[in-house]
Amino acid sequence: MKSEIIRFIESTIRDQGYAGAVIGISGGVDSAVVAALTVQALGAERVLGLFMPERDSAPETTKDASLVCDHLGITRITKPITRILRSMGVYRLQPPSFLVPRKIQEQYVMKKLKEMEKDDIFLQDLRGDGDTAFFRGIAYYRAKHRIRMVCLYLEAEKRNFAVLGTTNRTEALTGFYVKWGDDSADLEPILHLYKCQVYELAQQLEIPDRIRMKAPSPDLLPGLTDEFLLGISYAELDAILMKMEKNLDLSEFKPESVERVRRILTAAGKRRLRNLSITDAKIAG
Amino acid sequence: MKSEIIRFIESTIRDQGYAGAVIGISGGVDSAVVAALTVQALGAERVLGLFMPERDSAPETTKDASLVCDHLGITRITKPITRILRSMGVYRLQPPSFLVPRKIQEQYVMKKLKEMEKDDIFLQDLRGDGDTAFFRGIAYYRAKHRIRMVCLYLEAEKRNFAVLGTTNRTEALTGFYVKWGDDSADLEPILHLYKCQVYELAQQLEIPDRIRMKAPSPDLLPGLTDEFLLGISYAELDAILMKMEKNLDLSEFKPESVERVRRILTAAGKRRLRNLSITDAKIAG
Repeated sequence: MKSEIIRFIESTIRDQGYAGAVIGISGGVDSAVVAALTVQALGAERVLGLFMPERDSAPETTKDASLVCDHLGITRITKPITRILRSMGVYRLQPPSFLVPRKIQEQYVMKKLKEMEKDDIFLQDLRGDGDTAFFRGIAYYRAKHRIRMVCLYLEAEKRNFAVLGTTNRTEALTGFYVKWGDDSADLEPILHLYKCQVYELAQQLEIPDRIRMKAPSPDLLPGLTDEFLLGISYAELDAILMKMEKNLDLSEFKPESVERVRRILTAAGKRRLRNLSITDAKIAG
Repeated sequence: MKSEIIRFIESTIRDQGYAGAVIGISGGVDSAVVAALTVQALGAERVLGLFMPERDSAPETTKDASLVCDHLGITRITKPITRILRSMGVYRLQPPSFLVPRKIQEQYVMKKLKEMEKDDIFLQDLRGDGDTAFFRGIAYYRAKHRIRMVCLYLEAEKRNFAVLGTTNRTEALTGFYVKWGDDSADLEPILHLYKCQVYELAQQLEIPDRIRMKAPSPDLLPGLTDEFLLGISYAELDAILMKMEKNLDLSEFKPESVERVRRILTAAGKRRLRNLSITDAKIAG
């Protein structure tokens, strides 16, 4: 698993004539794994870690991003994107929160989300149904991911480096990404791996415990975790997805979990389509 | 040609539950055609034109973008992106030019480009070979296109509108677009049309003469036109591409023009690949 990815990175970077690789370091496990693999493929001196915090980022992500870069011996550039988002008018979509202590913010966000139709905020997002406030929230969080992509390319292209993506198979299948945001890169070294396989790899690669042990979070709103949004644990989600992809029996799982996964896949299939053109319409019809 | 596109826009917007459409209006013919078709599909009140000038934009684009929106009766939002690009550090990649009169800038840019290896700036871009100054220029111009994409989505998503792309088939085949920039949208209504077909459609749709008659330009550097970058006229390029796609005889064309198109297609095929993953590598290998 590990050596195949390392060969893939090394040969693609060489064939396409890139001088190195840029990775957006979030402090999470996916970007840590991609960075570690890239260091083994290209050497630490050809890998650049870009950390892009903004107004609503959790303070501990700074420490985590430094930990990853220092551990791997790669150069880290910290580029806060708050001013860029402010010039774009992104923060006007959400009330300012910086005067409220973070703990209170976290309780408030989770309370508000739980008041919404239970765990359906993610399904609503995939389907694109909601009220004005909902759509403003969608525009707000997606702009952050897209600005990060633009910054990654700015740093990469001026050095003739490639942008390495950190999307995994679980995210790709469930639509747990932002179109033209974190899904947009030159190489996707872990796109074929489920989240649980990324964790296995993280252990093999000796990624620091602190990074491997924390709850995966999109770092978009204070207190929000991936598993809250997905409405299911990664362990259960991956187990169901693996069997579904092979058309195997699903009776060992809780029916409500299987139903949850089916609903996510249906919603993800509908709206996450890439550029639709007349040619696609002809193929589909 | 026209009615098929109008049906495609109308049915896709309806099926995917979008409330309307946003189009980036550049003042050029492609965005004018897409906007006109969308007005016929959805009605002018559900179409928003977003005009995004920046420091280096030609002053006449403002007049042209207004002309298009007024002519079609759609709401126009002008959102200058200069401050966003400045916060990102994009302008630091190129010396400031605002103190130099525009006419002098245009002469300077064209002189400098002609001093480079003749018409090969576009091929170099596609291939990704050049020196440090070249890569800084690449990073500089691509960031502008990407920021425009992010702004289009911000305006679209807060209204539950779709982003309509304006890429045509000639651009798609020759790689004449920015990856994760102007190639990234929800619907691509004219992706199946060569540039010369877009002009035919513009005439049918009665797009104002001023828009149809001006030389197509990427509006990236003062004085720079599409045809200078491509190193061939659109008329000749389209004629050759059409025959190539059908494997027809090319002996009626000048050999150097055919060779130019072949070199563009080879370079475009190599670097413009989308997210590469291990799965792709397995298919290709």
